[in-house]
Amino acid sequence: MTPPPTSSTSSSLSPQDALGLRTALAAARKSYAEGGVPIGASLVLPHPPGEPSGAPVVLGQGHNSRVQLDSPILHGETAALLDAGRLKAEVYRQATMYTTLSPCSMCSGAILLYKIPRLVIGEHHNFVGDEELLRSRGVDVVVLDDPECIDLMERFIREKPEEWYEDIGEVPPAQQ
Amino acid sequence: MTPPPTSSTSSSLSPQDALGLRTALAAARKSYAEGGVPIGASLVLPHPPGEPSGAPVVLGQGHNSRVQLDSPILHGETAALLDAGRLKAEVYRQATMYTTLSPCSMCSGAILLYKIPRLVIGEHHNFVGDEELLRSRGVDVVVLDDPECIDLMERFIREKPEEWYEDIGEVPPAQQ
Ligand SMILES: [Ca+2]
Ligand SMILES: [Ca+2]
Ligand SMILES: [Zn+2]
Ligand SMILES: [Zn+2]
Repeated sequence: MTPPPTSSTSSSLSPQDALGLRTALAAARKSYAEGGVPIGASLVLPHPPGEPSGAPVVLGQGHNSRVQLDSPILHGETAALLDAGRLKAEVYRQATMYTTLSPCSMCSGAILLYKIPRLVIGEHHNFVGDEELLRSRGVDVVVLDDPECIDLMERFIREKPEEWYEDIGEVPPAQQ
Repeated sequence: MTPPPTSSTSSSLSPQDALGLRTALAAARKSYAEGGVPIGASLVLPHPPGEPSGAPVVLGQGHNSRVQLDSPILHGETAALLDAGRLKAEVYRQATMYTTLSPCSMCSGAILLYKIPRLVIGEHHNFVGDEELLRSRGVDVVVLDDPECIDLMERFIREKPEEWYEDIGEVPPAQQ
């Protein structure tokens, strides 16, 4: 018997990575429940600023809000950055961004703007963003094959293709 | 005698480009007056959708709102995209983005996400963003040397270096 799909990814992750992915996925599920694009993200520090012996801390988390707030710029990653608020350059440089789906050009650019050194991606089966650009500029990009992230996104694209293609600036295949 | 600095740029622009730059600069000046980062942008179509004989139309405009709204993701360009609201892929593909300053990685990525084919930059003396990436991916990038854009940004960086360096994810030189 194969184990249930979630345990394979979760069990191999560090506590920080498990926290970051779990937070991002919870935000994505919340968006799905609201009828929105189910992509979530979180920005995580290995420990609270000034407390090197402390546990990992979530600075911000959020989800795509195209549907909920009519926003073309609130993707999971930008929503997590907004939730984290104004931070000094030094803080971003110690953080990891977690996202349920490979980041689009805008969100990849946001990671580059703030020089976030590490990105953990839940999956890139449903969409491949600017991972190679990020790697070419020195970002440590880790791609998981998380079955929960894959299933959630697959279901959404099947159910609401118009919203999905709008979100990535593409003409839906049926209209091409 | 040299002519006053603004007339040289304005007089050489097409009506659409003059509208786009003027709108972006007005948004930047508004932000400056509010104590914010004075970078503005506008998203412009050559004519209203479905009215090919109509005049150029501003779909959205906005300014950096780091200071005003504590937002690390509302730059001029993303604010203009937010103001324009949810648009179909086809609309972005007919638009031009105008910005008073060379776009950072995030805003360059937003232009790539939505496949906006043309970008007009007020100036790149004070900051050079991802212009080369945009060109390498087929965006028609036009850089003006608008003296009003240059002066406004120069003044701001001199007056509020901390806000400026925070906005581009950099450690201020004095702290390095
Ligand atoms: Ca996202
Ligand atoms: Ca800007
Ligand atoms: Zn994105
Ligand atoms: Zn920007």
